[in-house]
Amino acid sequence: MVDFSLISDTYDKIHQHLVETPLLESPFLSKRLNKRVFIKAECLQKTGSFKYRGSWSSFVNNDFEDLKKGVLAYSSGNHAQGIAAVANQHKIQATIIMPKDAPRLKIKNTQSYGANVVFYDRIKESREEIGERLQKEKNLKLIRPYDDPFVIAGQGSLGIELINQAKRMKLDAADVLVCCGGGGLASGISLAFQGLNENFKVRTCEPENFDDMARSLKQKSRITNKAMDGSICDAILTPTPGELTFEILEKYAAPGLVASDEQVLEAMSLLFLHHNLVVEPGGAISLAAALHQHGKIHSDALIIVCTGGNVDPVIFSRALDLIDSKD
Amino acid sequence: MVDFSLISDTYDKIHQHLVETPLLESPFLSKRLNKRVFIKAECLQKTGSFKYRGSWSSFVNNDFEDLKKGVLAYSSGNHAQGIAAVANQHKIQATIIMPKDAPRLKIKNTQSYGANVVFYDRIKESREEIGERLQKEKNLKLIRPYDDPFVIAGQGSLGIELINQAKRMKLDAADVLVCCGGGGLASGISLAFQGLNENFKVRTCEPENFDDMARSLKQKSRITNKAMDGSICDAILTPTPGELTFEILEKYAAPGLVASDEQVLEAMSLLFLHHNLVVEPGGAISLAAALHQHGKIHSDALIIVCTGGNVDPVIFSRALDLIDSKD
Repeated sequence: MVDFSLISDTYDKIHQHLVETPLLESPFLSKRLNKRVFIKAECLQKTGSFKYRGSWSSFVNNDFEDLKKGVLAYSSGNHAQGIAAVANQHKIQATIIMPKDAPRLKIKNTQSYGANVVFYDRIKESREEIGERLQKEKNLKLIRPYDDPFVIAGQGSLGIELINQAKRMKLDAADVLVCCGGGGLASGISLAFQGLNENFKVRTCEPENFDDMARSLKQKSRITNKAMDGSICDAILTPTPGELTFEILEKYAAPGLVASDEQVLEAMSLLFLHHNLVVEPGGAISLAAALHQHGKIHSDALIIVCTGGNVDPVIFSRALDLIDSKD
Repeated sequence: MVDFSLISDTYDKIHQHLVETPLLESPFLSKRLNKRVFIKAECLQKTGSFKYRGSWSSFVNNDFEDLKKGVLAYSSGNHAQGIAAVANQHKIQATIIMPKDAPRLKIKNTQSYGANVVFYDRIKESREEIGERLQKEKNLKLIRPYDDPFVIAGQGSLGIELINQAKRMKLDAADVLVCCGGGGLASGISLAFQGLNENFKVRTCEPENFDDMARSLKQKSRITNKAMDGSICDAILTPTPGELTFEILEKYAAPGLVASDEQVLEAMSLLFLHHNLVVEPGGAISLAAALHQHGKIHSDALIIVCTGGNVDPVIFSRALDLIDSKD
C-alpha cells in the first residue's frame, strides 16, 4: 500500500541524498501563457532525472538482506541510471535490462556506475520475461520502474519538495504538468498533494499515440497503446498504465494532456534559450503540452516539471536547429 | 569604498529578488580531478547570468532620484540584460550601448526588456566615449559594468550564498574558480570570503591572449591586452582590469588561470553531458581551467562557478559536435 504517510516517511529518510532541484519562475513563459509559470528543474537531479528519488526509496525501504544479493531493473535508461548509481553507492551489483535502441548516453552512463547491462529488442522481446528469468536464475531483487509502492513513494518526494518551495514563493494553487510513462512520478506527486494541499493538481503529459494514461483516465479503465515505437520521447514509451499508478491517478489527477514530437523539440529549444537547461524529450513534453493544449488548462498558475535531461547530442541539435531556422 | 559590510548589507536588501542558484556536487568531475568538485550553476540566475545581482544592487544602493531619469550601461550583453530587466521592473527607461558583434541572443533579450539599444564598433569606437556623450546629452545615470562599488557589492552576494551553501554541504575550504572580464564578480566574491571564511580562495579564469588580470596580478600592476577580439568568450573580453577590482584582487586572490577556446568548448560539452546545463563560453572557462591547469591547483576541493548561459545556438552546436566526434 502506498499512501501519504509512506511518502512523508520516505522523504524524511532520503532527502539528504537528493538535490533540492530549483523551482524557477519564468518571465518568458508567464508572459506567453498569461499566468504565473514555474519550471521545476528536476533535470538537475543526480543521475539527471527524478528516477534517482525512487531508487533511493527502494534502497531505504526494502529489506537490505534481499538487496545485497544484487538488484535487477529494466529501463529505457533513467531508472537504469538511478538504480545503478544508488546500488554503486551501497556497493551492490546492479543488473540492468535495457532496450538496444536506448540513447547511447543513457547506456554509457549506466555502465559507468558499474552496472551489468543486458540488451533486448523492444519490439520482439518482453523485458518483463527476461527480468523474471534473470531474477530466478541469479536470485536478484527486481526493482520495477513504476508499479512498486516504494518507487512511487520515492518519486512522491518531488511533490513534497514542490509544495515547500511553492509556499516560499507565495504560490498556493497550481496545475502541475508531469510527463507520464507508467505513471510512477505522477501518482507519487498526486498523493503528496493530496496529503499537503489539494489545490495543486497533477496533469499527466504524454506523446501522441502513446497517450495510454490520458485515454485510460477518460475511459476509467486501463487501455494499451497500439504503437510500440515512433516517438523521440524514449523515457516515457510504456505500453499501458501501471496497476497501482492508475488506481491513484484515477482518484486524484485532472485530465491528461498530449503533445507531438515537433512540439517537444520546440519546448526543448525554449528551455535552452530562456532557462539554460538541457531537457530530454520526455522531460520537455510537459512544456510542449502547456504551450499547445493551453485551452484545456484553467488554473491561474502552472508548474512545468522538467523531469530529466539525458538526451543524446544529435537529438538536442534538432531542437537547436529549430531556433536557427526561426531566427 | 566597497568592503564586506557593504556586501553583507546589499545581500540582505537584494537576496529575495534573486534565484539561489544550486551548488551541485559533480561525481564525474570529482572522479576525473580526484578531489571534491562542485558546480555553482549561476547560469540559472534571472536573465541568465550573475550580472542580475549587480544590477539589483545598483537599483537599491543608488539614489533613486538619479536613477528615475533613466539609466545607461555599456555591455557585451549580460550586464545589458541585467540592467534592462531590473530597470524594467522599476519602470525606468534603460539605454544600453552594445557592440554590434554581440551575440544576437543577448541583443534580442536586452531589447525584449524594453531597453533602447545603441550599437558601436568594438574595434574602431570607444564605448566609454559614447557613454560619456549620451550621459551628458540625456542626463542619464551611467551604471558601469564592474568598476563600481555597488556593482561589485551586488556580485559579492554570490560569495555569501556560496559560503552558506558550502556550510550545508560540510565544505569548509576550497579554491573557487571564477571567470574574469573586468573583475567585478571575482572581487566581490573575494571580499565576501574575506569577511566569512578565508579558507575559500578566488582563482580568476581568462581566455588565452585576454589574461590581463592574471598577468596584472603577477606583475603587481594593471597591464592591457594586445588583442581586442578573437575569442568565443564574448562576455569577458575586457582590455584591462578595473581599478577598484584590481586593488581588491591583488590583496585577496590566488594566481589567475588561463584556458583556450577549444578547452572552453570541451568544458561546455561536459556541462551539457553531465549536468544538463547550458553554459556560455565565458561561463565555462572556469571548468576549462580546472581541467587543463590542474597542476596549478592544490586545494582539496574545487568550486567551479558557471556564471552565465546566454549562448547563441550556433556556438553551442560546436560544443555538441565535439561530443559526436569523440564518441
